[in-house]
Amino acid sequence: MEKRTVYADNAATTAMSERALEAMKPCFMQIYGNPSSLHSVGQEAKELLGACREKIAACLGCEPSEIYFTSGGSEADNQCIRSAALFGARKGKRHIVSTAFEHHAVLHTLDKLKKEGFEVTLLDVHKNGVITAEEVKAAIRPDTALVTVMYANNEIGTIQPIREIGKVCREAGVIFHTDAVQAVGHIPVNVREDCVDMLSLSAHKFHGPKGVGALYCKKGLPLSTLIEGGAQEKGKRAGTENIAGIAGMAAALEEACENLGANMARLTAMRDRLIAGLLKIPYSGLNGDPVRRLPGNVNMSFEGAEGESLILSADAEGICLSSGSACTTASLKPSHVLMSLGLPHEIAHCSLRITLADTNTEEDVDYMLEKLPGVVNRVRSLSSLWDDYVSGKIPHVL
Amino acid sequence: MEKRTVYADNAATTAMSERALEAMKPCFMQIYGNPSSLHSVGQEAKELLGACREKIAACLGCEPSEIYFTSGGSEADNQCIRSAALFGARKGKRHIVSTAFEHHAVLHTLDKLKKEGFEVTLLDVHKNGVITAEEVKAAIRPDTALVTVMYANNEIGTIQPIREIGKVCREAGVIFHTDAVQAVGHIPVNVREDCVDMLSLSAHKFHGPKGVGALYCKKGLPLSTLIEGGAQEKGKRAGTENIAGIAGMAAALEEACENLGANMARLTAMRDRLIAGLLKIPYSGLNGDPVRRLPGNVNMSFEGAEGESLILSADAEGICLSSGSACTTASLKPSHVLMSLGLPHEIAHCSLRITLADTNTEEDVDYMLEKLPGVVNRVRSLSSLWDDYVSGKIPHVL
Repeated sequence: MEKRTVYADNAATTAMSERALEAMKPCFMQIYGNPSSLHSVGQEAKELLGACREKIAACLGCEPSEIYFTSGGSEADNQCIRSAALFGARKGKRHIVSTAFEHHAVLHTLDKLKKEGFEVTLLDVHKNGVITAEEVKAAIRPDTALVTVMYANNEIGTIQPIREIGKVCREAGVIFHTDAVQAVGHIPVNVREDCVDMLSLSAHKFHGPKGVGALYCKKGLPLSTLIEGGAQEKGKRAGTENIAGIAGMAAALEEACENLGANMARLTAMRDRLIAGLLKIPYSGLNGDPVRRLPGNVNMSFEGAEGESLILSADAEGICLSSGSACTTASLKPSHVLMSLGLPHEIAHCSLRITLADTNTEEDVDYMLEKLPGVVNRVRSLSSLWDDYVSGKIPHVL
Repeated sequence: MEKRTVYADNAATTAMSERALEAMKPCFMQIYGNPSSLHSVGQEAKELLGACREKIAACLGCEPSEIYFTSGGSEADNQCIRSAALFGARKGKRHIVSTAFEHHAVLHTLDKLKKEGFEVTLLDVHKNGVITAEEVKAAIRPDTALVTVMYANNEIGTIQPIREIGKVCREAGVIFHTDAVQAVGHIPVNVREDCVDMLSLSAHKFHGPKGVGALYCKKGLPLSTLIEGGAQEKGKRAGTENIAGIAGMAAALEEACENLGANMARLTAMRDRLIAGLLKIPYSGLNGDPVRRLPGNVNMSFEGAEGESLILSADAEGICLSSGSACTTASLKPSHVLMSLGLPHEIAHCSLRITLADTNTEEDVDYMLEKLPGVVNRVRSLSSLWDDYVSGKIPHVL
């Protein structure tokens, strides 16, 4: 096949959709008012803000008043978790349950809370990248203030039994937050049916703009401010509202939800074709559950082929992939997600994440299936780690 | 004159400039990568991010490494103030000096710190809306961790003697932060020459996009995180970078700085023409210093004409104005800024803020001078407060 550019790192970020961009355009120079301004230019912006809130609420199955706009998924995670922790602390509850393979926006917030006197139980993940509601139930204590479990993992794409966990939390009277940054717009999410109390989402993961996100906070739960100042977002999030970004996010989410079933079916087939093809590469293995995973997520390890070399070598072929979360690229440590599955260090280090979106085509899959075996071979041929496998110093496990 | 729309609430927010929008456009669908991604699509975004940081640093007179991107001015204020407070606390310094008429992003952050055991001295502002460096010097104690004084006030536009205050702080070895949200892009700001250690800015105040801002933190000063998560912004601000927003901000700031002198001269003349014309309305007065004020800022009180009524009545004439900060519109209390000047409640309540930008024309000024006297008259004719002035129950002070 002729050389082409295949962007298959959609879990890191996506290009914006036409529809999202069209929704943003009027906000730059026409509907540019400050929604807090009393005059007509401001009120026009305020109306648009309300309409966007309604769209997003409709997609999540909640009330518009339960949606708060943020600058992205990380801010939403920080605010939700900190709010639930502070609320718990006021009642003497200083214990939090989470998992070992959450995004760092969650894990680092929990680390900070630990320094402030909270106790955190991080549940181990099974080898397939899933935890069970029973495990959550067993971890809940009388002093548990919060359970926070991600909806779908950003690296291996495994989907947690959120509804079952939600029910367990509801029965125990514990606040349940889910980092749904990778799930919203990709698989069905309904906060009421899922018994979710708080949820975080990020627009740029579903073809919306970067720098904007939202959180859902169930009516009656007290949300604490993270950013102090003006009275925007019912006094819970200061700062002039990012109308253009919010309009783009609402349009992108609406579009994603309209096409959810069709996209899921198409991406699942593409994903499974990719996995089947790449498993033909000797000494390779799929990370995470083969079925309970996001439609577009492929995460594989190739023994003796370091992730960073795979990325650079694939990039030379025009294929954009990652080895894990983009948020931790700078780190040389193997992914905490893959390590949490109990993978050996050298397997975790030799992983590749391919994340497809609806913008990808069957030709993209064909191209990757044609090029990636050669990429793995080339990387192995230059790898001293691979030499150790060949010489038998390290035994094959895949 | 024929009816026209005059947007004169540019301190609340501005429409984006063509140049800012052009800078954003490529980031939606072409340079859409995650700057943390190793592949070429990500690296292209990373390069753009670096170029934007350089542009902004050049405009402020600092190093690119001293610029951190945020979601706006409020977040920047929160992060700077909290960082300096935490740094001080580690050395036993728990006292902060500020002024009574800061933006709520500052005042509410200080309120939160008070609850955490900090002591805050809020300096009173003189009747002209200015404080002196001597007053700051007198307020600094051995345990002062931070002085935070806004560069220019968002309601009355008065400009503080930042350089003098900076020198006082430098001599005393106290960290100096300035909320420069209303100043950057409008008047000359140079952090080195001004002896500023930390500064906050917001893009949408100078024709950049909403939802993006930046902070300057002098090399060597420890910045604490406000939003935990990924390692973006040297680990100090988590969340995928808002490339489009940042590109728009950099372009807008560059444009504003290029045209700074010409814009200042033109706006100052327009401002003074407006003030002179509006002062002809009986029982009116200018709030804040007539000279030490932002080129585009007019803030006046009209006895017996409530601000909210003035706004709505002006809006009916196509003129978009405010009575104070957009961030506090929902509040019925008179502006804390005007009250801090020592104005009587009924004068503070009867104020109007007109804020011009380079997008305004002389015709806009003509139109406002033609329409606003009638607006004031109409509002007074319906006001029981005005009746009290007429009957002599309340004595005129303006």
